[in-house]
Amino acid sequence: MADQYAASAASAVPGGPRSPGVPDLVPALRWEERPEGPVVVLLDQRRLPAEEVELVCTDVPALVEAIHVLAVRGAPLLGIAGAYGLALAAVRGFDVEESAQMLAHARPTAVNLGYGVRRALAAHRNALRGGADAGAAGAAALAEARALHREDAEASARMAAHGLALLEELLPGGGYRILTHCNTGALVSGGEGTAMAVAGAAHRAGELRRLWVDETRPLLQGARLTAYEAARAGMAYTLLTDNAAGSLFAAGEVDAVLIGADRIAADGSVANKVGSYPLAVLARYHHVPFVVVAPTTTVDLGTAEGAAIEVEQRPGHEVTELAAPSVPGAGTAAGSGVPVAPLGTQAYNPAFDITPPELVTAIITENGVVSPVTEGGLAELCARSRSGNGMMSI
Amino acid sequence: MADQYAASAASAVPGGPRSPGVPDLVPALRWEERPEGPVVVLLDQRRLPAEEVELVCTDVPALVEAIHVLAVRGAPLLGIAGAYGLALAAVRGFDVEESAQMLAHARPTAVNLGYGVRRALAAHRNALRGGADAGAAGAAALAEARALHREDAEASARMAAHGLALLEELLPGGGYRILTHCNTGALVSGGEGTAMAVAGAAHRAGELRRLWVDETRPLLQGARLTAYEAARAGMAYTLLTDNAAGSLFAAGEVDAVLIGADRIAADGSVANKVGSYPLAVLARYHHVPFVVVAPTTTVDLGTAEGAAIEVEQRPGHEVTELAAPSVPGAGTAAGSGVPVAPLGTQAYNPAFDITPPELVTAIITENGVVSPVTEGGLAELCARSRSGNGMMSI
Repeated sequence: MADQYAASAASAVPGGPRSPGVPDLVPALRWEERPEGPVVVLLDQRRLPAEEVELVCTDVPALVEAIHVLAVRGAPLLGIAGAYGLALAAVRGFDVEESAQMLAHARPTAVNLGYGVRRALAAHRNALRGGADAGAAGAAALAEARALHREDAEASARMAAHGLALLEELLPGGGYRILTHCNTGALVSGGEGTAMAVAGAAHRAGELRRLWVDETRPLLQGARLTAYEAARAGMAYTLLTDNAAGSLFAAGEVDAVLIGADRIAADGSVANKVGSYPLAVLARYHHVPFVVVAPTTTVDLGTAEGAAIEVEQRPGHEVTELAAPSVPGAGTAAGSGVPVAPLGTQAYNPAFDITPPELVTAIITENGVVSPVTEGGLAELCARSRSGNGMMSI
Repeated sequence: MADQYAASAASAVPGGPRSPGVPDLVPALRWEERPEGPVVVLLDQRRLPAEEVELVCTDVPALVEAIHVLAVRGAPLLGIAGAYGLALAAVRGFDVEESAQMLAHARPTAVNLGYGVRRALAAHRNALRGGADAGAAGAAALAEARALHREDAEASARMAAHGLALLEELLPGGGYRILTHCNTGALVSGGEGTAMAVAGAAHRAGELRRLWVDETRPLLQGARLTAYEAARAGMAYTLLTDNAAGSLFAAGEVDAVLIGADRIAADGSVANKVGSYPLAVLARYHHVPFVVVAPTTTVDLGTAEGAAIEVEQRPGHEVTELAAPSVPGAGTAAGSGVPVAPLGTQAYNPAFDITPPELVTAIITENGVVSPVTEGGLAELCARSRSGNGMMSI
């Protein structure tokens, strides 16, 4: 990691202590023009909530490494990161086509990553084709990244509104007790996120009675990031091991499950953080709505069904070692954490699982809600905003 | 903790490195006569697999503390610990009735604990009633503890045989891929344990293709203890986060689930480590047998149904902090681990969950197998070995 971060610097975030309940999060990602050239600045999510530390990426390899080690993560944000990364290469004069390859393949499951890269790459190619010089083509790529960033924030707000309306329809009594898994808030988005944006809208409407936060092993995005966002937003939230969700369902303490997605196949199969599928099975067994919130950029019409989605297998040491979030590098390299299992223990560590459409009550996108989840309904929603996305080869 | 451990000493276990694959485990619990008086010596399970350290308990408060902090744990072993604890009080001349109260209520869910205490207490009372002096009554209590210890080892062997026969019946192809949760081997038993004893029998029969080991959050008994036992036994095993079990079921990689139990109600409801119930729901959804292995001492005919079982709620810091197993005291006191969630985060942390009988394919006891699980069938099996157990008040 050191090599690729040679051009990066970590700096403490300026600003004193924050008032509780005020959602003044440090942006998860921003473009910054510096005297020495433009950079992509990331909030290092591995070190939350212990520390708010920023990573400064001056080139694409540094950004790819940050994606790979999950310093930046979450499907929508990966799309934005991919687009800015492409713009960074273009503006700084690196090889744009090679950068696109590196960025698009940094992680296999989140479809948004490739989508963001393709959008900025198309803008760059079109500008060159139109006779623009390298500077103008770089500016075009950057403008496209900014547009995607803005669109994602808008999509987030629209998903929140659609989601709140759906909750009102599914659960007319109000006072929702919502279970969520992994992290889907402002840290993964240009706006307020996906599932967490819906929870936030319910909270502002005075209708969020409790947010149940799955800790989300092995990397604890729920405990570290969702709890952090919920605390900042002043929500009533309770953390639990992923295991304990079953007891909550059995006790009738869960009104709905809200999760995000990393890739949705054309048939409505949802790839999301490992542990989502067991929740879907529990929700079905207990007749509780299981709702997926994701922008249409997460829908991959080029993947026919769930079985065709490539699921990233992560290193075993994420399971066999305990890594503390305050330790730089923790969880990213074998041997950097404290061993828990006997030495030599082999681990099965898929990052995602696939939930089939028949277990999904509804998919909420910025263009509306699909429920029941059908291939036709999903395609129709996507068509409202789709302009050939996904067809261009990198 | 320091106060109650004032009379205890930790010492490294003698003996050099062990050959891999040789199950020469340090006993989880033993009675030892020392020049300064008898003691109960425990293998401190909190520090496994990093270190094999023994805890020496010279009085009941030390043993109660060891039970409370999970240095000694597991339903059958808790029964044995309770009986030896009562004997320790009797032989050393402490207040036996008061000691019985303290021991029996050290943890609420495992029925075996009270059972072991009652057995030794009854032997003590009967000896006194028969005219024995304090010394002879103490010896009677100790003899009863030893008998329980021996019976548990025998029960373990019989459960293993019944379990293997059941697997052969349910899965005629052999080559079992078994998923287990928490820890149920020699560390919890006078013998080879419960579910793990069945896995061990399958392994020796050459029919255990893979043992899938759930890590078992929050205290990681699977990662720390079951992986340790599986490695020692030379089994082919793979560790996974509890979350990842869903993906294994979906991929058809699980032939059967084998777990233990902490209390089984008269109707066949099973209280076991939190995370068991979600596995039962997943197993049902995927038509995979879900099998509970427990001695009849775990059956509590005085508890009519699952809803009447008291589920221990453990401290929130077990979830909000990461504790490394090599650190003495880790996981036992708030603030002793590394905070993961934001300060002030509230956690829901039940130690157990309840699986209703309709989700349990079979219950294997030392007296045979109940399948389907019915109140009558369970009572009939228990009657074969029951001699008024559970009726005496402490």
